[in-house]
Amino acid sequence: MSFELTILGCNSAIPTNHRKPTAQLLNIGEQFFLIDCGEGTQLQLRKYKIKMQSIQHIFISHLHGDHYFGLIGFISTMHLLGRVKELNIYAPSELKEIIYIQLAASKTELRFPLFFHEFGFDEPELLMENNELIVQTIPLNHSLPCCGFLFKEKLKPRRMRKEKIQEFNISPEFIPSIKAGGDYILNDGTVLSHIELTRGAQLPRSFAFCSDTKYYEKIIPQISGTDMLYHEATFLDELKERANQTFHSTAKDAATIALKSNVGKLIIGHYSQRYYDLNPLLFEARSIFSETYLALEGEKFDVKRKYDPDS
Amino acid sequence: MSFELTILGCNSAIPTNHRKPTAQLLNIGEQFFLIDCGEGTQLQLRKYKIKMQSIQHIFISHLHGDHYFGLIGFISTMHLLGRVKELNIYAPSELKEIIYIQLAASKTELRFPLFFHEFGFDEPELLMENNELIVQTIPLNHSLPCCGFLFKEKLKPRRMRKEKIQEFNISPEFIPSIKAGGDYILNDGTVLSHIELTRGAQLPRSFAFCSDTKYYEKIIPQISGTDMLYHEATFLDELKERANQTFHSTAKDAATIALKSNVGKLIIGHYSQRYYDLNPLLFEARSIFSETYLALEGEKFDVKRKYDPDS
Repeated sequence: MSFELTILGCNSAIPTNHRKPTAQLLNIGEQFFLIDCGEGTQLQLRKYKIKMQSIQHIFISHLHGDHYFGLIGFISTMHLLGRVKELNIYAPSELKEIIYIQLAASKTELRFPLFFHEFGFDEPELLMENNELIVQTIPLNHSLPCCGFLFKEKLKPRRMRKEKIQEFNISPEFIPSIKAGGDYILNDGTVLSHIELTRGAQLPRSFAFCSDTKYYEKIIPQISGTDMLYHEATFLDELKERANQTFHSTAKDAATIALKSNVGKLIIGHYSQRYYDLNPLLFEARSIFSETYLALEGEKFDVKRKYDPDS
Repeated sequence: MSFELTILGCNSAIPTNHRKPTAQLLNIGEQFFLIDCGEGTQLQLRKYKIKMQSIQHIFISHLHGDHYFGLIGFISTMHLLGRVKELNIYAPSELKEIIYIQLAASKTELRFPLFFHEFGFDEPELLMENNELIVQTIPLNHSLPCCGFLFKEKLKPRRMRKEKIQEFNISPEFIPSIKAGGDYILNDGTVLSHIELTRGAQLPRSFAFCSDTKYYEKIIPQISGTDMLYHEATFLDELKERANQTFHSTAKDAATIALKSNVGKLIIGHYSQRYYDLNPLLFEARSIFSETYLALEGEKFDVKRKYDPDS
């Protein structure tokens, strides 16, 4: 099952033609999640050949325009293309009125159900849950109320050893209970442990999206051990003071959070427009956390499947 | 003095990466007017190296999103870049609240004066006037209240013949009155007609922007004789019924209006996304009005200076 992030925009507030404002697409087993939606996101989705209609959940971290100005255009295009599937938007509460006032101005009555789900900014909240995964907020520390988002797969059952099914002629109706941890008793009374009959389960994968925020250690317990962390890195550390004033992070900050959270890999982005060459940001972060990568338009990052060791 | 139009976006409601939504920039003697502002207009301005800060007047025809969704991003970027110069927006009245609700959500207090000027949709209204030009609304016939815009240079004075200044040793303080039509009297009492001393004046140039509208002959008297007409041409005439239903025009409609209005040249645009190849639209229009051109991203169209014949 895929677990893949596509960068659609990576710049901070002022976009350029090569660095659009923040937007990312997360594909977890063909469930598509759009995270932030800066101006022009609908064209970025088109450019990278992502089926817009397949997106059913959009997460907006906060209401600085570079994180949501593209949402009304996305919704309008979905409407014009005849969408009927519901669309869920998880966002600060004011966004609902901003969208509806614009739909009203054009006398647009959407043909698809649009659901807004608002969230608070004090404690992590569960935003959505289905059979495969959960999504939580990550309260951040920015100049506007702002949350990141944590996507976590659920624990999966152990996997049957096919050779054991044949060896003991195990009937299919017993397989779910064995995978769930039940033992199997042969006709002669022999008890076979589920450990012997199965292999280690696929481990839950996770992605944490943290933008925008100043250096904020309070998030560490929640994102600890996350496979993939996106953390904003607007400035180099030489502009630490500017970062503090504007409630943003430096590349060093992002890498320190990654290190202290023991994440698998770190992706940095939300670059200030002052940086034409992004390598200094990358080098600064890598000097602290070597598994750091630059968010660049169209780049993909995935988390490979991992399994519990057979035991 | 320049009189030049740059196409920033030419498509109808659903944008593509090669055909952005409607936006045009008119440069009249280094006064820059932005006409409509679809999503991504700020990046189009950047792409075509137009100084955003030089724009002081923005005209929004109506509140379908493909004509204004880029405005909030443009305003935000101007603010972040430290703009102090005032910005005037001429638009349907609801736009003011749409912009301010978004500025409030991000707690943005603009550093520059932002003035909204609303207009009605029944009769042509004067929107702005300065020493060089006037701008009027052109009420159109669309599914939402909508106006086009007519930009007209003012009549300029006749131009002095330099050789006459030397011949009669005319002192500079008399020149404005001669150019304005006053005669000049020599010391010996001889009266020199201003016609003899001057050459024909530069004729006022004009541009009419008409999008979105169905075929609407009521605009003809107002745009009659305009040097350059932009008229939407969303469909081919074979989709005339669809054009009527959606209050849009066909290429044939646009060309017929151009012909009946006796304009200098016609630019068509606002193409339906169903047309990959735009030549059929061009050919249909040219079969009626030969001086037709396609609006394409980055294309420039100008109106050359013309003079009253010397008389």
